Amino acid sequence: MTKISYKSKLSEKIIINKFFKKLNFNKVGTFNFENDAAYFNTSRNYKTIVTTDTIVENIDFFSNDPPESIAQKILCVNLSDISAMGAIPKTYTLNLSINSKVNYDWLKKFTSKLNKLQKKYNIYLLGGDISYANEISITANIFGEAMLKNIIEQKNCNADDDIWITGTLGNSYLGCRILNNSNVKLDKEHSLYFKKKYLYPQPCLFGSKAYKYINSAIDISDGFLGDLSKILNGKFGAKINIKFIPLSTMLKKIMIKHKSLIKLEDILNWGDDYELIFTSFKKNRKKLLDLSKKNGVRLTRVGSIINKPGIFDDSQKSIKNIHSFDHFS
Amino acid sequence: MTKISYKSKLSEKIIINKFFKKLNFNKVGTFNFENDAAYFNTSRNYKTIVTTDTIVENIDFFSNDPPESIAQKILCVNLSDISAMGAIPKTYTLNLSINSKVNYDWLKKFTSKLNKLQKKYNIYLLGGDISYANEISITANIFGEAMLKNIIEQKNCNADDDIWITGTLGNSYLGCRILNNSNVKLDKEHSLYFKKKYLYPQPCLFGSKAYKYINSAIDISDGFLGDLSKILNGKFGAKINIKFIPLSTMLKKIMIKHKSLIKLEDILNWGDDYELIFTSFKKNRKKLLDLSKKNGVRLTRVGSIINKPGIFDDSQKSIKNIHSFDHFS
Repeated sequence: MTKISYKSKLSEKIIINKFFKKLNFNKVGTFNFENDAAYFNTSRNYKTIVTTDTIVENIDFFSNDPPESIAQKILCVNLSDISAMGAIPKTYTLNLSINSKVNYDWLKKFTSKLNKLQKKYNIYLLGGDISYANEISITANIFGEAMLKNIIEQKNCNADDDIWITGTLGNSYLGCRILNNSNVKLDKEHSLYFKKKYLYPQPCLFGSKAYKYINSAIDISDGFLGDLSKILNGKFGAKINIKFIPLSTMLKKIMIKHKSLIKLEDILNWGDDYELIFTSFKKNRKKLLDLSKKNGVRLTRVGSIINKPGIFDDSQKSIKNIHSFDHFS
Repeated sequence: MTKISYKSKLSEKIIINKFFKKLNFNKVGTFNFENDAAYFNTSRNYKTIVTTDTIVENIDFFSNDPPESIAQKILCVNLSDISAMGAIPKTYTLNLSINSKVNYDWLKKFTSKLNKLQKKYNIYLLGGDISYANEISITANIFGEAMLKNIIEQKNCNADDDIWITGTLGNSYLGCRILNNSNVKLDKEHSLYFKKKYLYPQPCLFGSKAYKYINSAIDISDGFLGDLSKILNGKFGAKINIKFIPLSTMLKKIMIKHKSLIKLEDILNWGDDYELIFTSFKKNRKKLLDLSKKNGVRLTRVGSIINKPGIFDDSQKSIKNIHSFDHFS
């Protein structure tokens, strides 16, 4: 780890000493990034939960995106996966493939944001690797822990389970539309609000708070319909109360004003919200709403699991156009 | 994990079902790659050792290299790091960024090799991520375990420690020279032998066998001199018996024949051998040689640690040209 093959003025020493050393919080197993491997401890009776994602320039972000946004995305996409397993994040590794667009200022902004997020989510950088490539590519592995009996499985729903969503959907979708200048003209304040939602997604960490009451869970990274389908796993179906799909007040206003431009269908197929979909026994409703209040997490019950495969709206009509981001066309 | 954003005929389902599912050996925590995160167990009183490396097309390998070679390299660079910590490898994650050059046949060869190596090193694929990029880029995180008291630190040598090398150096260097057609003309048999050494490096896993007798260790990934310097850490020096540097019989023959073409200096600065350098108290010599025999690992004592910083040969001359691969020019 912490090996570098990067031809630039930014030497290995500068990158590690100036930018990375502040991110290990002096934790013992990191060896202050002066070893090729690192170690961490898993508490007795706990399992180590691992998730990993790679984000690539021009696919998951653009090279002129704020470095702070790229930092937030690489941690966020992984933190919400850890949460969907009911686990608490602990530490992570980072593999940074950088090109000549990455300079001192970029690294400073990128690592400052990581530092802030580490403090927020109580994690530290365990180690990593820096290499040179033509396109920027970033991989993170996040390690969490959970007791075996508390691990939430994606494919463990039951008929009649309630289907819940944390937070709201669609802000990120509109933010992306605005950034791509696709006919959505808003005043500066609204425009900024939605762009921020897209550039700085907030992972929902409710999974580790509510694992006791959750049967199956997934983070919404590929779209509500696509990710719900993964929970259903071809065996079950879902009845969704479309009018209950949680949208922010601001988004609702914009949707009324720009009716033809923003369709609910698109919102339901858009990822990057990093909220959770989870299913739970009906009997847990009160417990979940109490936890929701206690943790300041908005919860919405949007439907229930049924035995008939497919996703249907309240009038039994099939909700079509399930094309989540990672499917192939 | 196991998310894909790859526009090609190779769908997510094909890649996972045809190629990846055989690599998890049905281990429980992998969820058969149908979850966004996975888990593994760390034995009681053990620490989880983590190492990670990224290899990138045109830097660490070429796109027309055999897929089997690329598979071997990504596991090898990480396995030797785990070994240098004195740990036993257990499981790993894989992040594959692929482009249009990667087809069905490529994936078949790549994963078949992974499968063989997994059996050889008793590890399994925990999970991963597949994404689309312009250049092929592969990241692996390997997880091992060791008891805290047995973890070998890179920077823990003492004055008068013996310096040992496992295996031999330079075969990989010559293999690379031949592949690049740089004036080294050999008969077919010899040529094949050295090319194979370069394309299919074998990580030395002696660290977890001999941790009791090792004070500090590092794998030779950046060159003997560069990696030894990391052990010395600016505080200590080394006296090296140049004539003891272990070379294969075949390489020695070629060096006599092609004297001006292959210099020992180049061999000492060349990485990709993935053997170990380690230091040990003098009193451990017999124990180490016994272990060496028992495990079929060639061991050579090449010098000793001294208090004066620098690396010197037997006649007290400083060995210059320390330029390991990851330094900057």
